Amino acid sequence: MRGNSFGRAFKVTTFGESHGPMIGVVIDGCPAGLKMDIEFVQEQLARRKPGQSRITTQRKESDEVMFVSGIFEGKTTGTPIAAIIMNEDARSKDYAEMSDKYRPSHADFTLDAKFGHRDPRGGGRSSARETAARVVAGGVAQLLLGLQRIRIHAYVSQVGPIVLEKSPEQIHFHRIEKNIVRCPDAATAKKMETFIDETRKRGDTVGGVVTCVVRGCPAGLGEPVFDKLHADLGKAMLSINAVKGFEIGSGFGSVAMHGSAHNDLFAKSSGKVVTTTNHSGGIQGGISNGMDIYFRVAFKPVATIMKAQTTVNRKGNADVIHGKGRHDPCVVPRAVPIVEAMTAIVLADHWLRNRTAKVG
Amino acid sequence: MRGNSFGRAFKVTTFGESHGPMIGVVIDGCPAGLKMDIEFVQEQLARRKPGQSRITTQRKESDEVMFVSGIFEGKTTGTPIAAIIMNEDARSKDYAEMSDKYRPSHADFTLDAKFGHRDPRGGGRSSARETAARVVAGGVAQLLLGLQRIRIHAYVSQVGPIVLEKSPEQIHFHRIEKNIVRCPDAATAKKMETFIDETRKRGDTVGGVVTCVVRGCPAGLGEPVFDKLHADLGKAMLSINAVKGFEIGSGFGSVAMHGSAHNDLFAKSSGKVVTTTNHSGGIQGGISNGMDIYFRVAFKPVATIMKAQTTVNRKGNADVIHGKGRHDPCVVPRAVPIVEAMTAIVLADHWLRNRTAKVG
Amino acid sequence: MRGNSFGRAFKVTTFGESHGPMIGVVIDGCPAGLKMDIEFVQEQLARRKPGQSRITTQRKESDEVMFVSGIFEGKTTGTPIAAIIMNEDARSKDYAEMSDKYRPSHADFTLDAKFGHRDPRGGGRSSARETAARVVAGGVAQLLLGLQRIRIHAYVSQVGPIVLEKSPEQIHFHRIEKNIVRCPDAATAKKMETFIDETRKRGDTVGGVVTCVVRGCPAGLGEPVFDKLHADLGKAMLSINAVKGFEIGSGFGSVAMHGSAHNDLFAKSSGKVVTTTNHSGGIQGGISNGMDIYFRVAFKPVATIMKAQTTVNRKGNADVIHGKGRHDPCVVPRAVPIVEAMTAIVLADHWLRNRTAKVG
Amino acid sequence: MRGNSFGRAFKVTTFGESHGPMIGVVIDGCPAGLKMDIEFVQEQLARRKPGQSRITTQRKESDEVMFVSGIFEGKTTGTPIAAIIMNEDARSKDYAEMSDKYRPSHADFTLDAKFGHRDPRGGGRSSARETAARVVAGGVAQLLLGLQRIRIHAYVSQVGPIVLEKSPEQIHFHRIEKNIVRCPDAATAKKMETFIDETRKRGDTVGGVVTCVVRGCPAGLGEPVFDKLHADLGKAMLSINAVKGFEIGSGFGSVAMHGSAHNDLFAKSSGKVVTTTNHSGGIQGGISNGMDIYFRVAFKPVATIMKAQTTVNRKGNADVIHGKGRHDPCVVPRAVPIVEAMTAIVLADHWLRNRTAKVG
Repeated sequence: MRGNSFGRAFKVTTFGESHGPMIGVVIDGCPAGLKMDIEFVQEQLARRKPGQSRITTQRKESDEVMFVSGIFEGKTTGTPIAAIIMNEDARSKDYAEMSDKYRPSHADFTLDAKFGHRDPRGGGRSSARETAARVVAGGVAQLLLGLQRIRIHAYVSQVGPIVLEKSPEQIHFHRIEKNIVRCPDAATAKKMETFIDETRKRGDTVGGVVTCVVRGCPAGLGEPVFDKLHADLGKAMLSINAVKGFEIGSGFGSVAMHGSAHNDLFAKSSGKVVTTTNHSGGIQGGISNGMDIYFRVAFKPVATIMKAQTTVNRKGNADVIHGKGRHDPCVVPRAVPIVEAMTAIVLADHWLRNRTAKVG
Repeated sequence: MRGNSFGRAFKVTTFGESHGPMIGVVIDGCPAGLKMDIEFVQEQLARRKPGQSRITTQRKESDEVMFVSGIFEGKTTGTPIAAIIMNEDARSKDYAEMSDKYRPSHADFTLDAKFGHRDPRGGGRSSARETAARVVAGGVAQLLLGLQRIRIHAYVSQVGPIVLEKSPEQIHFHRIEKNIVRCPDAATAKKMETFIDETRKRGDTVGGVVTCVVRGCPAGLGEPVFDKLHADLGKAMLSINAVKGFEIGSGFGSVAMHGSAHNDLFAKSSGKVVTTTNHSGGIQGGISNGMDIYFRVAFKPVATIMKAQTTVNRKGNADVIHGKGRHDPCVVPRAVPIVEAMTAIVLADHWLRNRTAKVG
Repeated sequence: MRGNSFGRAFKVTTFGESHGPMIGVVIDGCPAGLKMDIEFVQEQLARRKPGQSRITTQRKESDEVMFVSGIFEGKTTGTPIAAIIMNEDARSKDYAEMSDKYRPSHADFTLDAKFGHRDPRGGGRSSARETAARVVAGGVAQLLLGLQRIRIHAYVSQVGPIVLEKSPEQIHFHRIEKNIVRCPDAATAKKMETFIDETRKRGDTVGGVVTCVVRGCPAGLGEPVFDKLHADLGKAMLSINAVKGFEIGSGFGSVAMHGSAHNDLFAKSSGKVVTTTNHSGGIQGGISNGMDIYFRVAFKPVATIMKAQTTVNRKGNADVIHGKGRHDPCVVPRAVPIVEAMTAIVLADHWLRNRTAKVG
Repeated sequence: MRGNSFGRAFKVTTFGESHGPMIGVVIDGCPAGLKMDIEFVQEQLARRKPGQSRITTQRKESDEVMFVSGIFEGKTTGTPIAAIIMNEDARSKDYAEMSDKYRPSHADFTLDAKFGHRDPRGGGRSSARETAARVVAGGVAQLLLGLQRIRIHAYVSQVGPIVLEKSPEQIHFHRIEKNIVRCPDAATAKKMETFIDETRKRGDTVGGVVTCVVRGCPAGLGEPVFDKLHADLGKAMLSINAVKGFEIGSGFGSVAMHGSAHNDLFAKSSGKVVTTTNHSGGIQGGISNGMDIYFRVAFKPVATIMKAQTTVNRKGNADVIHGKGRHDPCVVPRAVPIVEAMTAIVLADHWLRNRTAKVG
């Protein structure tokens, strides 16, 4: 009932706290016979890890993944894939003050309200460190999807007020990794970088948007009622720390449109049924239609700021808290691989589930 | 694997197609001893049912719910609660053309791609008629939450370009039902109504936004990692037909904010820990903090329009389809009780799940 | 959490009480495109229904199944299959006394202890009537398995002290339905019938054993750890009313054997790997090996007897209860199709699950 | 779909193979605030570990458990409890021959049939080593149940033909650990020990029965339909390696009884409702009734024997295999803590689930 698992056919369970000995993940349901490219998984972790550029937290974690179960002679065996990442550089002292005072807009107060007993070191289980385990699982999922030529590309499309003025189909994905913001447009990336830098210098933080595009997804993934593909994608994204919003295809922009403009007309192209527009974002009635899937994910500004804030302590008295520790001024550059990972997990899950849809 | 169930502790399973003999719902997990107010459930159905005003579809369904299991002498017994609603006024002939041609932005094409064999009458299982079953389950959930004084209020906050310029805390909930749009501001409602009317007359449709507010939710509901309360709410909303976006609290608006402005400072009020602002939307780290929960749900314009559209038929050839049948020009007035129902199901589920959080 | 569903990929949910308006079942996960043979399902119900012979209860139920969802033009659509059976001939008055007094070895006391509020009519949800819904689901599962030429045959192998002295491979399955006991040996059946008759005349009841054989199951079904095929079969059987024991293959008899005698040696036969003996009962390491699966299910004597028994009433006082109503003197003849149904559900579930075991 | 998790509210997931670097377990759902007695858990492991006496395998594993998640300052936090045990003394060379030849009555053949790709070292995931992870989870469950004064006692009641002639209520539980067989009767234990010794010397193996008694279980645990308490116990037991049978209460012995003799009459004792006999084994209608729960579990003889056996190899050719490695001549002495562990997991799960049964 505690919700540390995600997925039904490709089921991911994570464990571990930010300041315990390790974090880890168990994947139950990855099919046997998948060639494991551990280097690829390690690369995804490198894209998520702290300290990778001057606009991310300066904490250092080598984030080396060790697979301990489910792989034999380089291939998956069908038994659970388990992987662990050791924790390093956990300066618990930075958090001493925070064990007594509720950090504003963190999980401190709500965890206490829920469980009564909480590991305060680094946010414990609610730390974004947990997402490293998701990136490992997502890497495995991406390998599985790769066999079907399903490719996932996420990128930063907004930082604070700075918006990338390009639609998903205008993006050159190979440009995403060309800059430390992970925005596939050099000029916009530069502005975002400057904005994050200035924000950081003031001890403040700022939000952003990650856009994700799935290419090569066949028609038929997703279920008609509760487990619509975009519903599961939405849950996956909203389960990532700091996410406040999700929209698929035309999203909130669809509201002001008329049906006659919004409807995606079907047409034939190279013997394949396509739609002439893609306001649906590649999903209709909860099921993929073979067009590109794209969606946007809103991240709020990081809650830890280097400023004094009024708050309440565990005794329930008014208090003042001073931001410490090493935190990201803006979470979206590092969130890109997390968004990709969760997308891959959802698609791998639905790809496997879809195998039972028809008798033949 | 087909996803016709929702929830873990308060588990809702729906069945039935729009043009079959009936639709129904099974609720497994509603605790024993709950006084059943069937009239209340019936009222929720009346708010959802077609034909209730001139801005909704003119289809007629009496939508009378019959409980067939799980209730004895007016109280729940702990065994599964099952309820059915008979289908009426199903004019299958209206759909004859549509069985061969894929209606743009409907589930016709994707269902065929997925299952190979499809019930084309009225959209079959993908019809919004399925949501009547959800409203029944949501009504039961609301009764359960009512015991805890948790109240859910949804309303229309946008129709096409017309926006209700009031924040959730400015709303007088008793005004929601005062007009047929379900917008709690008479002047704005009037404009929306006119806009929908004009749209309908042109044979077109338009989108809208439903805002939902939960009052009285105690701190502690929701889980820290994958089953964050807003992640489950998001999935619940995105599983409703025509929904394209979801945002909790500050949502997409948080992106352009700085952490120093966005953070909700804790304070003490009447012996209770509160936050002085509520950008979090009542949820922090995935767990309710005792403040009002509020979120917004974007609905695209209804796909069925009374205009000719180019499309492709089942044989894969280009074709033209002509909108027929009786459909809503704008879905949001009738979506209000559906949003409330799904919200109630999520909260009932998490309220029950939370009973196992602590040893004592 | 209330456990009214069974299976993961072929998920069966039942609802309804013995004296409510109907009982029903929802099957979520049956693949699309399965030709539905409703007559076959109805035949299975006829084998379970009361009043079919003089050695079963004389209650009359027509037990006509009505499919209300998930089937179009004679084939499954992939959406949930729902079916209902109306209740008839429910003489609630027979149970008046029993609402106050706990019937020995029934669920009356434990349901009260658990839920506080109980439907006492005919045992409510704990009535064996619920198994009619299982038989419907099992019938659909058998149709699905039939495509794979997997055949399930159950029969009565013991009634009271009378034991069928034949091993599963000696059985001619077509003889099972030749007598009202469902024992595939005429002479033994006759003895069993006489024994049941005498027992009934004394107002007493007696137990029995049902043996089940699965023929044609391919190697590979079942999972290596918790969801071993025989573990899921065991749970399925033990969930049937009155079942007290389950053994697979050599079962309890294996205890006194040595490994050198018990091991099933592998050999080659017509190009296929087989075992020269089958103490394993067709399952090794939790996974089917292609040999016949067979197991035995022990049913205790029916608890309702036509004799006075001392007991305690709801107020907690000593009392005397007098058996009334129309009950089976021995449950196993009618249990045969229930055992088959639950077996089919388990196999259909694992057959679908197995589709995700390998990458290719 | 691969079934490496067990339980719904107290959900246990295991991972790891016998010859990989480690095995481990994740418990999701253990309530917060439970005082962790790691020494107690370690003691349970010691009772299971190989090499503990001359009648068990001589393999040496220190089996030291390391908790890596979910515990802070000696108490559970409500987040997942993860624990690992490093593998040692894994002589892979002993298994070289076995990677090519299917060991009779092992999982070698069926794993190949299912997954195509298999880790042959020591049985891989199907090794009984996996049960060490269960013992850890069971230890935590026992601590949770201990708060409710629910106590679980398993013991050896049969080895080969040697039967302990005592009913569960005649057992002095403190005698169980007085001998290496774990049979609570010195004279019988001696005979069993001798029998095992002789069997071992012949290079053979033998089966046995473990009986388990739960004392102090309150009325109300278990669910009325599919998740009957004994159905879940049965599945739990049947999921343990080498188990071939399960019976609750009177079990297979009930078959030959009449209802008038089998029914457990209710009576009042010290203000509590009790039954004067306990053929039900403490469970009626799938729900505990407050009496002792007891059941019996049949273990077949260990498949690995020190004798040559004919078999088939991976190429499908006839071959001969020679037993090697260090194996138990009889599994039941070491199975006692495994049976207790799985029992504890089932009861902890149902105890938590039962918290949602009633409104109040």
